[in-house]
Amino acid sequence: MIKTAIIGASGYTGAELIRLLYHHPMVEITLITSRQYAGEPLSACYPGLGHLGLTFEDHNDEGVLDKADIFFTALPHKASAGIVAKLVARGKRVIDLSADFRFSDVTVYEEHYEPHPHPELFQEAVYGLTELYGEEVKDAKIVANPGCYPTCSIIPLYPLLKEGLISPKGIIIDAKSGVSGAGRGANQTTHFCEANESIKAYKVATHRHTPEIEEHLSRAAGGPVKVVFTPHLVPMSRGMLATIYAVPAEGVERAMVEGLWRDFYSGTPFVEVMSGDTLPDTAFVKGTNRCMIAVRENPATGHLILLSVIDNLAKGASSQAVQNMNKMMGWPQDKGLKVPVIFP
Amino acid sequence: MIKTAIIGASGYTGAELIRLLYHHPMVEITLITSRQYAGEPLSACYPGLGHLGLTFEDHNDEGVLDKADIFFTALPHKASAGIVAKLVARGKRVIDLSADFRFSDVTVYEEHYEPHPHPELFQEAVYGLTELYGEEVKDAKIVANPGCYPTCSIIPLYPLLKEGLISPKGIIIDAKSGVSGAGRGANQTTHFCEANESIKAYKVATHRHTPEIEEHLSRAAGGPVKVVFTPHLVPMSRGMLATIYAVPAEGVERAMVEGLWRDFYSGTPFVEVMSGDTLPDTAFVKGTNRCMIAVRENPATGHLILLSVIDNLAKGASSQAVQNMNKMMGWPQDKGLKVPVIFP
Amino acid sequence: MIKTAIIGASGYTGAELIRLLYHHPMVEITLITSRQYAGEPLSACYPGLGHLGLTFEDHNDEGVLDKADIFFTALPHKASAGIVAKLVARGKRVIDLSADFRFSDVTVYEEHYEPHPHPELFQEAVYGLTELYGEEVKDAKIVANPGCYPTCSIIPLYPLLKEGLISPKGIIIDAKSGVSGAGRGANQTTHFCEANESIKAYKVATHRHTPEIEEHLSRAAGGPVKVVFTPHLVPMSRGMLATIYAVPAEGVERAMVEGLWRDFYSGTPFVEVMSGDTLPDTAFVKGTNRCMIAVRENPATGHLILLSVIDNLAKGASSQAVQNMNKMMGWPQDKGLKVPVIFP
Amino acid sequence: MIKTAIIGASGYTGAELIRLLYHHPMVEITLITSRQYAGEPLSACYPGLGHLGLTFEDHNDEGVLDKADIFFTALPHKASAGIVAKLVARGKRVIDLSADFRFSDVTVYEEHYEPHPHPELFQEAVYGLTELYGEEVKDAKIVANPGCYPTCSIIPLYPLLKEGLISPKGIIIDAKSGVSGAGRGANQTTHFCEANESIKAYKVATHRHTPEIEEHLSRAAGGPVKVVFTPHLVPMSRGMLATIYAVPAEGVERAMVEGLWRDFYSGTPFVEVMSGDTLPDTAFVKGTNRCMIAVRENPATGHLILLSVIDNLAKGASSQAVQNMNKMMGWPQDKGLKVPVIFP
Repeated sequence: MIKTAIIGASGYTGAELIRLLYHHPMVEITLITSRQYAGEPLSACYPGLGHLGLTFEDHNDEGVLDKADIFFTALPHKASAGIVAKLVARGKRVIDLSADFRFSDVTVYEEHYEPHPHPELFQEAVYGLTELYGEEVKDAKIVANPGCYPTCSIIPLYPLLKEGLISPKGIIIDAKSGVSGAGRGANQTTHFCEANESIKAYKVATHRHTPEIEEHLSRAAGGPVKVVFTPHLVPMSRGMLATIYAVPAEGVERAMVEGLWRDFYSGTPFVEVMSGDTLPDTAFVKGTNRCMIAVRENPATGHLILLSVIDNLAKGASSQAVQNMNKMMGWPQDKGLKVPVIFP
Repeated sequence: MIKTAIIGASGYTGAELIRLLYHHPMVEITLITSRQYAGEPLSACYPGLGHLGLTFEDHNDEGVLDKADIFFTALPHKASAGIVAKLVARGKRVIDLSADFRFSDVTVYEEHYEPHPHPELFQEAVYGLTELYGEEVKDAKIVANPGCYPTCSIIPLYPLLKEGLISPKGIIIDAKSGVSGAGRGANQTTHFCEANESIKAYKVATHRHTPEIEEHLSRAAGGPVKVVFTPHLVPMSRGMLATIYAVPAEGVERAMVEGLWRDFYSGTPFVEVMSGDTLPDTAFVKGTNRCMIAVRENPATGHLILLSVIDNLAKGASSQAVQNMNKMMGWPQDKGLKVPVIFP
Repeated sequence: MIKTAIIGASGYTGAELIRLLYHHPMVEITLITSRQYAGEPLSACYPGLGHLGLTFEDHNDEGVLDKADIFFTALPHKASAGIVAKLVARGKRVIDLSADFRFSDVTVYEEHYEPHPHPELFQEAVYGLTELYGEEVKDAKIVANPGCYPTCSIIPLYPLLKEGLISPKGIIIDAKSGVSGAGRGANQTTHFCEANESIKAYKVATHRHTPEIEEHLSRAAGGPVKVVFTPHLVPMSRGMLATIYAVPAEGVERAMVEGLWRDFYSGTPFVEVMSGDTLPDTAFVKGTNRCMIAVRENPATGHLILLSVIDNLAKGASSQAVQNMNKMMGWPQDKGLKVPVIFP
Repeated sequence: MIKTAIIGASGYTGAELIRLLYHHPMVEITLITSRQYAGEPLSACYPGLGHLGLTFEDHNDEGVLDKADIFFTALPHKASAGIVAKLVARGKRVIDLSADFRFSDVTVYEEHYEPHPHPELFQEAVYGLTELYGEEVKDAKIVANPGCYPTCSIIPLYPLLKEGLISPKGIIIDAKSGVSGAGRGANQTTHFCEANESIKAYKVATHRHTPEIEEHLSRAAGGPVKVVFTPHLVPMSRGMLATIYAVPAEGVERAMVEGLWRDFYSGTPFVEVMSGDTLPDTAFVKGTNRCMIAVRENPATGHLILLSVIDNLAKGASSQAVQNMNKMMGWPQDKGLKVPVIFP
């Protein structure tokens, strides 16, 4: 059994990691940390997980970082980089769920976040969108686990841009997320009575996942891609849908898109191309590492409409992190991740 | 007190009309009809409205249509046209909430719906998007009350197209609706456990509100406008948000859009232009006849992002119908409609 | 037009008061206060109410308390008593939505809350459960607006205890409330993801509404009544249901209970006895001042089961406050409160 | 790998069985049936489960019942008994999720349901509340899987009645269920807009789970026990809470109840006694086979308040069925069921 640690386990992605690692057949959880809950049992933070018998430690305490081999860091950005640096110095392998190592260019990070405390580690990190970069993940010291919006958006777009089926111009991503994406911190936006019976856009044209999306679309297209990205908050706990508008290349039809997707993702277990009448629904992927994608044509204007759903806490965060761990360890990438959707 | 009737009062728009007309100071409800509930008290259908003491009648019964002066028809399309014809023949004025008289061209209707039983009445009908066509509504025999998606989409787009601030090409409307938009009929889509914790697109590129939207945008632009329109189902009872992507004319900026909106809607009480940081939220308009709109720029691609919220059952249906009645009667258009939002 | 003020208008009961007073035909809102938002427009706190053009003031500023005749105080307990004292000293009439004047015995208050800063005012206050104490409310200087749980529980129980139809022993109140009852303050309990898809009891056997309920049941019974009271948090914004178990006196049947209720509340417009098959549902009273009650028998054990629903923010707080204002002013008690339920 | 079949797999308990059996390490699913979907892929009914590659068959077709060794029947009552009889005749072992074999006395069944087509099989069936009757389940041909309300209610009550810690008289069970308990059939009650923002009691004093509860409480008490049982519908998909009021025997205190529970369930992995301040919440057990219980005292009246939560589709139906299968096969009872709660 490989020893795994979750640094910053008190948030939603931490709880989701605990759920997934606990029943993963190849690993055990030997360390969970939280500054706020250090010394307390997991039940103090998550009563439903109390029976696992875990206790929070403080990751700054002497010797704590020796307790595991693989580390999941689920801290806020900047806080994460510091602990990642310590872990790398100890020779540990890290899957970082923060934004701290998601960019290849530190200036892009610093433009959208803040001065980076460990720019020297940027070159060590691999962007862990497993379906695209799984080979590089295998040997990575640091895997930068992707953001939820980027995961949901890049999966359908990457192959189409790479093969030139759509124009790199005019891509519009209208994305919708459940409230858990805002984290467990209590504020007016996440108050039940404010989020319930409400839908609204937020951070329009300014969300920090935009440059993350654009970096990988640019790689696919072989040149700079700029997108319109509009996130929305939906009154549900989990789930993410991206509705994407793109201009196809001459003669490109629905079947060609579906065919390309199928080919491109043929070796991967978690992307499902929906080729019938049914449209993707976040309820189809809840609790799973799956991404379901579909395409429709709008003949009157010539647009393609791409639809992509994931569970923001799973494929959009924690289960993709486990998928990356599987890659790093040389295990089948769906090890411990084959549990079907929980519905309803 | 003017006598008003609701034909087909057992659905959600019917219940909303009852709510609004009951406390309207100039009218009384003298007739509610339903084939299914004929002879039964309103409480059999809506227990919360039982105290109003109303009883359903059958609108096909002899003499029933003489019981009021102004009629709201809230029947399914096609069923509506037949009763509207009877009412017009009796000299009654009708506000029709169905789709039966929403198009100026019967062939467009028949392409998207079915053969129309009373094409001769098309010329009698005025499209009741009150802010745009209020003057024509005044004298109309038949007011075709707009669909919810068209109301939410046309209000922000019309002035911009009319004044050339945006291109008539490349308009994308990504709209999100609460479940009440699907009506009160029970089916798998509206089952709580299917709609809850879920977001999905439906009728992508095929929704029948598309030609309704396009007709009025084309009027505004002075030439044919085609849009991409994607409706989504959101796990909430009421509310509608349209996130609209448009390409501005050279040099057009946020302030110019807001300024034009303000001018264009200056004489109307229900459109609010949000010029600060806050973005529209369906929770801001619940239960009201209001439409709140905002705009943002996406400098990297040059797009404008327009955001528009209404209550789909109110401004998207029943309260706009009352607003139209007010116009028809020569009353202030906000008569009986000034109740602020119910929140939370 | 009578001038009304809302002291502490930034919470949910404040917003609900604004909604109700704004369209009340006999009053105008001349003052809203909030320490946090003083100087800011109402839209800073409630964007959906921005069009009303109101601005928050600080109730501690010189002269502010002269701006109205009738005051609604919607502050936390203890904070409320201080401002109420100032208002009474100025000869103003006050409807206090806090718990500060709800008890006849200050020691009961102090046992469950904290030392009371103005015990001398206790005798000035009338408990504003309007259906029971409307006559006393008429002349009151201070009306202590009841808690939501007490309102929902006392209405069905009071007449039965008063007339001896049920035993004063063994009364169990199992109550369920929407999340707005917890207020607008953000904390983990009110986080969307914690309250959604969850039901739980809280403050079991220790909730401070218990002695408030018991005082009035004891008055009804003519002797001390102790109850079991268990509140629960339900994933909805508004609404409250009390399911009450009681032991009937010998020979008491459903029809007798319904008959007594009908008689007892015959002169009041807001209590509806449901005598058919339909059971009370919080959705029947949303946004209204209504209370719907029903009773069922459990022959095997001899218990009666009483069911009572209100909107916790309306009859459980703000609309009952308006009902009390109507009483104080000698207006019909349903003035401004006749708007039917908003559904769905 | 043991071959398992799900007869009537198109409902929510069927989908939950598929989820659980699919990742159970000792079994494979070799048959799923549905009359409605016979011949169609599972995706036609559950698009999120399409990737499992299962196809519905018709359980009435020749030879179909030979395709597995262990059968889960998830049909409506009465329909179930017929197929169970066929299976038993073939020597198959059956876990029946319907009500058809839940009573020891066929007259009780027939009083609350309808004439039973196979009363001769009553003696073959064991009531599968695994914690109580696990030993008998081991050798059973037919396991009658308990109802959700009985499971949630009997677990906390049984030991207390058996050991005389509470009176068999005056037990009141106020239970709250998510909407999935009503099944996947679409009707007005399960319509999103009717169930959302609503709480209501239903089938007060008449629910058919009452005699099922009473049978096992009577066994525990050694004499007839009658309860008050009031189910409620809560706006959430999954989850069940029972708030139970009981009169303790002289001198019985909280710690004694907790101690007895701990002893009684010490050999079982799924019952957790909560002895701290935290109260049970349905969100703590979502997707799991766990039951969390707690007790509080109400000193003023002497009552005990017991709180019990389960996932109605899991421990209340499908995962308890798997737990029973484990018992029948001689496997550890938590085989395949150790996945922690999914939260949020």
